[in-house]
Amino acid sequence: MALIVQKYGGTSVGNTQRIRNVAARVAKYRAQGDKIVVVVSAMSGVTDSLIKLAKEIMPLPNEREMDVLLATGEQTTIALTAIALHSIGVAAASLTGAQAGIVTDGVHTKARIQNITPKTVHDLLNQGKVVIVAGFQGETPEGQITTLGRGGSDLTAVALAAALKADLCQIYTDVDGVYTADPRIVPGARKLDEISYDEMLELASLGAKVMQSRSVEFAKKFGVVFEVRSSLNENPGTLVKEETKSMEDVVVRGVSLDKNQAKITLVGVPDKPGVAARIFKALGDATINVDMIVQNISHGSGAPATDLSFTADKPDLLKAQKVIDGLKSEIGFRDIIATENIGKLSIVGVGMKSHTGVAAKLFETLAREGVNIDMISTSEIKISVIVDLAKGEQAMKAIHAAFLGS
Amino acid sequence: MALIVQKYGGTSVGNTQRIRNVAARVAKYRAQGDKIVVVVSAMSGVTDSLIKLAKEIMPLPNEREMDVLLATGEQTTIALTAIALHSIGVAAASLTGAQAGIVTDGVHTKARIQNITPKTVHDLLNQGKVVIVAGFQGETPEGQITTLGRGGSDLTAVALAAALKADLCQIYTDVDGVYTADPRIVPGARKLDEISYDEMLELASLGAKVMQSRSVEFAKKFGVVFEVRSSLNENPGTLVKEETKSMEDVVVRGVSLDKNQAKITLVGVPDKPGVAARIFKALGDATINVDMIVQNISHGSGAPATDLSFTADKPDLLKAQKVIDGLKSEIGFRDIIATENIGKLSIVGVGMKSHTGVAAKLFETLAREGVNIDMISTSEIKISVIVDLAKGEQAMKAIHAAFLGS
Repeated sequence: MALIVQKYGGTSVGNTQRIRNVAARVAKYRAQGDKIVVVVSAMSGVTDSLIKLAKEIMPLPNEREMDVLLATGEQTTIALTAIALHSIGVAAASLTGAQAGIVTDGVHTKARIQNITPKTVHDLLNQGKVVIVAGFQGETPEGQITTLGRGGSDLTAVALAAALKADLCQIYTDVDGVYTADPRIVPGARKLDEISYDEMLELASLGAKVMQSRSVEFAKKFGVVFEVRSSLNENPGTLVKEETKSMEDVVVRGVSLDKNQAKITLVGVPDKPGVAARIFKALGDATINVDMIVQNISHGSGAPATDLSFTADKPDLLKAQKVIDGLKSEIGFRDIIATENIGKLSIVGVGMKSHTGVAAKLFETLAREGVNIDMISTSEIKISVIVDLAKGEQAMKAIHAAFLGS
Repeated sequence: MALIVQKYGGTSVGNTQRIRNVAARVAKYRAQGDKIVVVVSAMSGVTDSLIKLAKEIMPLPNEREMDVLLATGEQTTIALTAIALHSIGVAAASLTGAQAGIVTDGVHTKARIQNITPKTVHDLLNQGKVVIVAGFQGETPEGQITTLGRGGSDLTAVALAAALKADLCQIYTDVDGVYTADPRIVPGARKLDEISYDEMLELASLGAKVMQSRSVEFAKKFGVVFEVRSSLNENPGTLVKEETKSMEDVVVRGVSLDKNQAKITLVGVPDKPGVAARIFKALGDATINVDMIVQNISHGSGAPATDLSFTADKPDLLKAQKVIDGLKSEIGFRDIIATENIGKLSIVGVGMKSHTGVAAKLFETLAREGVNIDMISTSEIKISVIVDLAKGEQAMKAIHAAFLGS
């Protein structure tokens, strides 16, 4: 008898018919004698409607109250899911995050889980019930309602799986698993049977939006093996786990293209200590998430100066420009160039650690396609390049073919 | 500095604009230096939508889960109300029923308040905050979410006022207060400045649907003075309190007409002990709420027999007939006559206790109007008669004129 944690996202519970479908799936597992804990998100659209209501009253509503408000979304789903299980004769009981013993810090709208005391969950499981837990939420030790921020329901599932020492954690979504590339761009992309936490992390942070990084990090930290699979069919998904020897035989696990980055270049930055620190401190203070950073010596006349480029999320571009403009007189760079027309192309694989020539093959492939490389960034298991947005998909296909065939 | 509990119903918080209006009213009181606790219902329509969702899945959903589901309605309103107060610069914090320390028994969907430990409410008030509490809900000592059933938000307000030893409890609704009669039927009806708990109870149970009886009973038991007033204007409302000497000078406080009753007569019931007990036990077991009961000797031939009439809520008429039909062979009555065409007309006033001739004046008035009296029932402070539904309003106007002028 296994203990399985299943997580269903907002689309999977988007209306009462879909909630019935979830119940039917849960019942099938239950019928095999397994203990089941189900984590659910708010029905798709509900969270947005609640946010809209709040913003009708005030553009920047208090975060404590937003948590009280948004927590109702998942609470609605747990009750409906329990009722759907009852309707097909399966004993079930719902629990809010607080009732499930999920204790967080007090950082409203993006709280971190501090610990989980799943006594009530165990009690209900031992009574033979399927336990439905509201994802995305918890409470502080003082009893304040909190929410966990984006990807919070995945985090609830992974953290509960760790606390309950579950045998399996299944993340149900609307895709079949993790692919070698986005199949909408690369028709030959294949679903992966398994992938390491680190590879998943790189892909997650690269715009393969199956899961938020924090849930994967949490799973890695606590050794929770989880499966990403579809709630629309019975296909096996992708198992995410610690890397194995056999994983290293594959050099490149996947290719991703992130079209959501923008680039800013500061031209003629005085070449003296502390300048870069000043710039990135200011960007960090403005909560702008900087991704790649590249600095080149500029061989102009006059005092020694460099060009400094970095990328950030597209929606932050204007804010970043404003921050940099504010530093102009202090730092004294010559010009600022901003562009949204870039794509960030990455190859990921734990096998890269022990294989040489991967970067060379990547650059050769791009050269053959006539794609210019704008910036390069590497890690142990990843190489990313910034290219012209217009050539991104063509480049992605070529790279997938070169490393993964077809 | 007074402590005021204000309760706003679903219509008063029906959309974000109305919630802003509530906030503006609260702010005005707060500006006078008073401590304010606000109890809110779910936005009008929300509870019904949630019930509809549940019934899409299952006609008779589990009551524990219905409580989890419905509690989200008030939780949404508390957050939005707190945000609305913030938006006009008033410090405020929301609390669910559980967070406000409202402990109930475990009878889901109609739980009773067992006790209130309003420590958190006091703490927040002492921080200078307006405290917004979700009406209609609480939790069991074991941490299960419960709801209090119909009129639950009023009960929350009255019970909180008692626990907090509030100076005033204001029940905001869409009427200006309690009237001597329904102004839609009796144009000369007047708003009452004050009314005793007992009079309010009789009026509440007589179809003057300002408040549910249980909240008034609770207020009476704990001596909570409350005011029923409108959230749409600034008019003073009706103060509900223990009766005073001056109240007794007024013989009749109000006239009500309940069109929601039906009558069943059992003809030729054998006149022997235990028959009535058997009948009303069976109706009680079927949770049919019987109101008036009248028994007359029938002077027919044969064995001694009586006619037995009673009234019940119209929606229960068919169920009641079925129960009675099931007893026919056991009890051996001759016939059953059921009708929905009745109205229950009542006059209420604590002054009746010490005034004679009230009944006579009532009957004379009805006779003068040519209204036949079908059943009569009296209590210390009330006389009710069952009349033909078609003549109910005409009779009501005449009685109002006779006892209350115009």
